[in-house]
Amino acid sequence: MELHGFSAERRTFISTMLKAAGAAALLSGVSPLEACASPGDRKNYTVQDIMDIILQEIPGAPFKETVDTLKSGDASQKVTGIITTMFTTVDIIRQAAKDKANFIIAHEPTFYNHTDDPGWVAGNEIVKMKQDLLKEHGIAVWRFHDYWHAHRPDGIMNGVLRKAGWEQYGKSGEFMLSIPEMPLEKIVKHFKSSLKLQQVRVIGDLTQPCKRIALLPGAWGGQRQVTAAEKEKPDVLIVGEVHEWETAEYIRDARAFGKNISLIILGHSVSEEPGMEWLAAWLQPKLSGIKVKHIASGDPFKWL
Amino acid sequence: MELHGFSAERRTFISTMLKAAGAAALLSGVSPLEACASPGDRKNYTVQDIMDIILQEIPGAPFKETVDTLKSGDASQKVTGIITTMFTTVDIIRQAAKDKANFIIAHEPTFYNHTDDPGWVAGNEIVKMKQDLLKEHGIAVWRFHDYWHAHRPDGIMNGVLRKAGWEQYGKSGEFMLSIPEMPLEKIVKHFKSSLKLQQVRVIGDLTQPCKRIALLPGAWGGQRQVTAAEKEKPDVLIVGEVHEWETAEYIRDARAFGKNISLIILGHSVSEEPGMEWLAAWLQPKLSGIKVKHIASGDPFKWL
Repeated sequence: MELHGFSAERRTFISTMLKAAGAAALLSGVSPLEACASPGDRKNYTVQDIMDIILQEIPGAPFKETVDTLKSGDASQKVTGIITTMFTTVDIIRQAAKDKANFIIAHEPTFYNHTDDPGWVAGNEIVKMKQDLLKEHGIAVWRFHDYWHAHRPDGIMNGVLRKAGWEQYGKSGEFMLSIPEMPLEKIVKHFKSSLKLQQVRVIGDLTQPCKRIALLPGAWGGQRQVTAAEKEKPDVLIVGEVHEWETAEYIRDARAFGKNISLIILGHSVSEEPGMEWLAAWLQPKLSGIKVKHIASGDPFKWL
Repeated sequence: MELHGFSAERRTFISTMLKAAGAAALLSGVSPLEACASPGDRKNYTVQDIMDIILQEIPGAPFKETVDTLKSGDASQKVTGIITTMFTTVDIIRQAAKDKANFIIAHEPTFYNHTDDPGWVAGNEIVKMKQDLLKEHGIAVWRFHDYWHAHRPDGIMNGVLRKAGWEQYGKSGEFMLSIPEMPLEKIVKHFKSSLKLQQVRVIGDLTQPCKRIALLPGAWGGQRQVTAAEKEKPDVLIVGEVHEWETAEYIRDARAFGKNISLIILGHSVSEEPGMEWLAAWLQPKLSGIKVKHIASGDPFKWL
């Protein structure tokens, strides 16, 4: 069964059809994929096949507007192996080539801007070198951002909660957690050790007791971070990255007014990486005869 | 002489008049202000007077479009003392009140967003408390961002270069510096000690020799930072803050391709603070009978 090369409408039809097949398959005890694919097809996935298998499980997919598009390669190319990661760095591309995996599923942009516009900075030499490197190794890159956040539970949030051993404190679709009361310092140490972070930046009193946590991995932007803080009045806001002049200054002032709110900045890449690690674990059982491997793009910084 | 309450056009006229008076005063050896103001006026500056005295020295001022507006207080209020700083934090407001200074000139926003829109986050309790605190103490706040960067030399850049003892390596209006070749680590140590930084984040090889530096304090945004990197090919980009998914990932990839480019992230507030310190030194001699004091809003973070 070939799924590639279809228009969005066609994919929606296929997706609906697969869901129906999946429902039937559920009754028969086989996976939706197995119900649709003949045994000989199992090792013959195209990039489009993989995307369709994933999108079946995303509510409302495919989206009319999304940044989750192919950034290199072709939907019709045969997949030799899959890498999940946060950022398709040059090192990740080289590692994928070494592993003979030609499909990278990455949470964040490849070309340093949200829409992956290669002309964002005119004549960008590094963009050109990266495009050439991807082409040289025949590697397809799919951004998997909006869809993974739309999964229920949110794929990133779920990965982070699992990594932190905090699944029991979260509710699907919500960013607020209720944890057993503990001082801020203990939360900092817990995240540093469970997510293996070099270092974090904090605004707050380390002895302050916390139990209501707003967990916002990645870069939500100041407006959404401050809105979450104002609306939920958490004891601590845990984020990936901030605009310092927005969220950080808001927290500094709130604290000066005696509000019981702190901020922990984990770093963007490391704050969401567990969600892309979980993607590999989530995707592997849906496929046969092909390897899905997570490689962490990791913290880019030295802290000096 | 009253300067407040005029329209922009009127202010331009006054500014032109003051410049002419200044030119005449230069010949006579007295300051432009002294040439215009009668002795009795000297301790009777309004907020508008101070703004006009400053704007005389900014090329092209007043600007039609600028975020440099009054964020609280009134242009007609009599100034009791002036504080310069990066962020008008709650602590800075309290310190100003203690010092009986009712005019704060700050480089960055007061209400956590670029245009200081108080409705940026609806019903923001901290914004309301801050507005009330400013009102309670009768403090005027003027953002002084676009104008200070438009000064020649750029007020922020000049302050940072002076603080770093690097005036001789910069040229007015340019962000590129040529320094005697030194390893990246020495540059990191030099900025940490001269700007009194707790810690910085770095991407690069600490032993790498550097001599061409792009110095971009504050938050230039990814597009301008990456454009500067692409256009000038500096050995190191020194910035205030970054969007991690933009500039940091670009630098990580450029390095993986073997490019000799590093990144030092100083922190937003601390990277530009010397420019607001220099403003106090620059402004004080232009006024008589009123104190201009710099208070650093400082690094909001604990690094753990």
